[in-house]
This record gives sequence, C-alpha cells and structure tokens, in this order.
Amino acid sequence: MTTSFMQSVSYENGVLKILDQTKIPNLTEFLEITKIEDAWDAIKQLKVRGAPAIGIAAAYGLLLGIKDAPESSFEDFYSVFKKYSDYLATSRPTAVNLFWALKRMEDRARTDKELPVSNLKEALENEAHLIRSEDEDVCRTIGEHALTLIKDGMGILTHCNAGGIATARYGTALAPLYLAKEKGWDIKVFADETRPLLQGARLTAWELMQAGIDVTLITDNMAAMVMQKGWVQAVIVGCDRVAANGDVANKIGTYGVALLAKAHNIPFYVAAPLSTIDLETKTGGDIPIEERDAAEITEGFGKRTAPEGVKVFNPAFDVTPHEYITAIITEKGILSGNYHEELPKLFQ
Amino acid sequence: MTTSFMQSVSYENGVLKILDQTKIPNLTEFLEITKIEDAWDAIKQLKVRGAPAIGIAAAYGLLLGIKDAPESSFEDFYSVFKKYSDYLATSRPTAVNLFWALKRMEDRARTDKELPVSNLKEALENEAHLIRSEDEDVCRTIGEHALTLIKDGMGILTHCNAGGIATARYGTALAPLYLAKEKGWDIKVFADETRPLLQGARLTAWELMQAGIDVTLITDNMAAMVMQKGWVQAVIVGCDRVAANGDVANKIGTYGVALLAKAHNIPFYVAAPLSTIDLETKTGGDIPIEERDAAEITEGFGKRTAPEGVKVFNPAFDVTPHEYITAIITEKGILSGNYHEELPKLFQ
Repeated sequence: MTTSFMQSVSYENGVLKILDQTKIPNLTEFLEITKIEDAWDAIKQLKVRGAPAIGIAAAYGLLLGIKDAPESSFEDFYSVFKKYSDYLATSRPTAVNLFWALKRMEDRARTDKELPVSNLKEALENEAHLIRSEDEDVCRTIGEHALTLIKDGMGILTHCNAGGIATARYGTALAPLYLAKEKGWDIKVFADETRPLLQGARLTAWELMQAGIDVTLITDNMAAMVMQKGWVQAVIVGCDRVAANGDVANKIGTYGVALLAKAHNIPFYVAAPLSTIDLETKTGGDIPIEERDAAEITEGFGKRTAPEGVKVFNPAFDVTPHEYITAIITEKGILSGNYHEELPKLFQ
Repeated sequence: MTTSFMQSVSYENGVLKILDQTKIPNLTEFLEITKIEDAWDAIKQLKVRGAPAIGIAAAYGLLLGIKDAPESSFEDFYSVFKKYSDYLATSRPTAVNLFWALKRMEDRARTDKELPVSNLKEALENEAHLIRSEDEDVCRTIGEHALTLIKDGMGILTHCNAGGIATARYGTALAPLYLAKEKGWDIKVFADETRPLLQGARLTAWELMQAGIDVTLITDNMAAMVMQKGWVQAVIVGCDRVAANGDVANKIGTYGVALLAKAHNIPFYVAAPLSTIDLETKTGGDIPIEERDAAEITEGFGKRTAPEGVKVFNPAFDVTPHEYITAIITEKGILSGNYHEELPKLFQ
C-alpha cells in the first residue's frame, strides 16, 4: 500500500494540487489551482470528490482566496475570509465535511484573531494541513476498527468510491481492505459501477487494482444477484452526512444496497469519520439532497443514450434510514444501533 | 396508440424486416434480412430483443433458411429444416420463446408432413405469421388483465423494455399503460435505464414518449429512492422465462427491483405470455443465464469507463424467486401465488 499511495489533494507554496478524478482511469492528471474560483469549480465538477477530500480541498481553497486579503486589521481580513468561505460553501450542498472544514478554519481565525494578520494566515495554512493530516489518521483508525468486522476470505460489496482518493489517504470504506491486504488476507471485492458518474467503475476498481486487491466490477443492478449467489458477506460504504438519529446520506443507490443487504441477511456497514456526523441535522429528512443535470444520465458518456427531451430525475444522494445500518464505524469506535444516544457521546 | 404503432418484426416476400433496436433512440432504422445467418446475428446482437419478438424473429428467420430447401421429399426437406432450427436455437439461451417458436414451427412441419413440400413451406409461413398475430392478441389480452390491477393516477415503475417493440404489438408489461392511456388515465411511469445496455433509457422511455405517456427516466440505483418517496404504487416487468414453480428469469436487475418493491410494500407484477412459461424447467435455478461480454460494462458507451483489464461479471438476466412475485399476468388470467399448482392449469 505504501508504494501505491497517491495524494489526491495537497497544497504547497500557494498552489492547490488536485488529482482530477473525472479523468481516471484514462488519465492520471493533476490540476494546479491558484484561484479560489477554480477550487470552487473543481468541487462542483467533482474533479475532487469524496466527503473528506472535499473538506480538505475547501480548506486549502480558502487559503487561495485569503492570500491577498488585507492585513491592515482582523476585521478587514475577516470580511474577505468570510466572503470566500460563504462562497465555497455553495459548491455542493450534501456533504457536511465541506461546512465542517470551513467551520474549523473559521474557528481558527477567531481563536487567533489577536495575531498579526500575516501570522494568522500562516496559522490558517497550518490548520488546513492539520485537517489533511488528521484525516489520514482518522481513515487509518477507521480501517483498523472496520477490520475487526471482516475476516480473511470474505466477499465485500461497496458502492461509489470511499477510497484513498476520496480522503487524505486509505479511504473510509476501503481502508479495511487496504489493511486486510497488508495482512495478506484474500478479500474479494465487488464494486458497483455507481451510475450516473461511475465512481465505482472509474475510481474504486482503479484504486483497488493498483493496490493488487481482487475486485470485480458489476453494474448497480447486479448487486442483488451477487448477494443471492452468496458471494457477499458484508457491505461497506462511506457517507456524505450522518444525521443525529443515524440516518445516512450517501451516493445515490446506497439505500437500495442497504435494502438488498437486509433481504440477504448481510451486514451493512457505514464508515463515517466524525467530520461527516452532523448532530445539528436531526434526521435524514433534513439533509438537503443535491439534484444534478439530466445530461449526466442521458448523455453521460459523451453520446446520447436516451430520447431528446425525456424527463429525468437525478438525485446525487439518497438517505438510508438508521434501522438498515448494522454499524457505523468511526475513528472513535463502532456503533451498532441506538445511534440517537450513541452518536452525541462521540463528541464528548 | 393506433397512430404510433410501429411493427418491430415483420416478414413479406422472403424479406425479414427488423427494427434495429440498438440504434434507437438516435435512429429509427429497419434491417432487411434475407439470410438466416443475418437473422441469427440480429438476435444475438440484440437488434431484435424482447422474448416475444425474439420468438417471432426466429420463426421468420427459419423461413429464410428453408426457402431453398429441397422439395424432393419431406425427409430431405426436414434435414435442412432441423439444421437451421438447431442453429437459430443457439443465438440466445435464456428466453424460452425462442425455443417455443421453433418448436411450434417443428410441430407444424410434422403435422403437415404429408403435404407436398412446396405447400408445406407455405403452411410454415402461415404458422410464422400466426405466431406474430397471436402474440398481438396475447399482448392486448395481458394488457386488459393487467389494467384491472392499476388505477388512474398511479405511479408505475418498470425495468428494461417489455413494450411494443419487444413484441408483435402493445408489449407485455407496457400493454396496460397503453390501454390506460386510451382510457385517458394519468399514469406516471418510472423507467429504470437498465444497465448495461440501457433498454429502459433507449427503448422504454422512447416508446412511451411516442405514445404521449408521462415517463421519467432514472438510473437503476434510483429505484429505491423513488419508492421511498412514495411515488410508485406498482412495479410491472416482463420476463424471459417462467419456471414451473413461478420463479422468473428476466433482465438483470429485476430481482433487485422485486426486493425493493417488497421492502416498500409495493406489488410486483410479472407480465408473462404462455409462450414464456416453461413447465419443463422446474425452478429458476435450472434456467441457463447468459453471460455477456465485459465490454458492455467497461466501454458500453463507445468510450472506456473502467480500468483496462478489470475483472467483470456480466449476467444478462437474473432470477426472481416466486415468493417475491405478487402476481403473474398471462393472457389466460392473473395468478397470485401457488404458482406450482396454478401454472400447469393454464395449459389444460
């Protein structure tokens, strides 16, 4: 794993470097971004995606916005800071890490408001790096916890991509697979292709193959049959937001996979860093669900595959009610049910 | 409906005319086939598809093979007939209508074996036309029965394409929607796009739009969310083969939709002409499931969308166990459970 590690989001000398995930697997291309507008665009266009990676990119993107902010006073600085923070917050509505990372940056700004602004800018750069490096630790820890739920020889199904490139490193849902590989375990992964944008086909299959992990690509509608055949002993997915009651918003199709898992008595696990848990959101019904352009479905492959003018419904996420979630795996341990009471304890 | 009717398979003066379903919705193009090899290819390549339409195309295709067969004796004729019938049977393994139609042609040949061979050839052409015209009646009757299960204002989800172009006319699963439209009912249809070959996006959405029926296209993995929102009051699908116990083979993804319907207490209906019911096949486990080329998944849109060399599982069909099927709708009426006993009665 150490050899194949590819950092999908990094920042150095005023340049935000982002692995363009829309080009994978055909091209491994890094964007070098110096303007906040391009960072916003990279998030909006899914060039960087995955809830933790979006948070990291937002923190770094904010640095691009504030690098030329006035240093005359905190107030002058802060008005620019706030403007750009609010701007980045409009890029994608569902993943809470975006808001979480911007909030952390804001907390740092307020905490260090007495510093000369030039020093405050340095503090904010350190904070952004900290968000990245902490995410790496968090993912590794989630992987270690998750590893206690799986066994050598298991078949594991995952949906979308909650892998290394969706985070600082390791991924969330895919972290235990990398750790299992390190232990020499033989895990057989089934990757849903994840329409419309094919993150499973393009990203999950790609990164697992790079790590030498046995992965089989299927279309989303084959998951039920693969379960029926007895090939899957656990489902693990990532998430974009966990509500206070344990309802989970994740990539469209996740809810369906949860129902299929339940029908086959297969445990359904959600890997969720604390940064995705939003106690302010009471239930899944309160999570705003992004709807995206119909063209992602009707001509998502560069070629029209549906009639002109057809009506389309294209939600980017769905909500899995907590009762279908066998366990939520966080960096502070594993919760199994009673989420309403257990989730707040993680923050104490 | 009468105005927008398009016959997807027809035969006249030694020419088999097939609507090339792989070109829809971008082009409405008819193939004019005069050689049996091209008929085999059209079935194999899904240029003609849908269990009933495959049966009709096979019967007509056989006419192409036998038109120059020797007329010296029945035995000389029959050896050519048998060779071509066996050949067409190899085109696709799952849909039983293929074998059913070839069997009907064989029965006609044997019944009329005393005729001069030139007359026998005419009798076989009539039999093929009869297969087509009977299918039209069967579909209309299935539609009338199915209509008793739905109501004005309902939302109906369907998977793949069991519509007019998959049959002689009307379709099986879509037949009640055309009849509902004739009655002026307001039915809202959700069409799963049906990966990998997108029959839902390309064909179902197209033919329903042509008929002025309200259709919304979704990716397969959105079906669960659409049900969760309460937008679906019934699921209706077609089928490729019904086993003696009521298990149903249909387009990959059907089994998953059945599980999702059950989880939301939505009735799951299968429209099945008697020609798809195969009492010789005891259970779904005995139905051979065609596996197709990985490229349908990895580069199905003319552009590579998955890593080179990725392992792929690509079954064209799955099996829905009978316990998930609320009712099987045939031209002889509606069966609700107890299929093992009720299915054979249809043939008495």
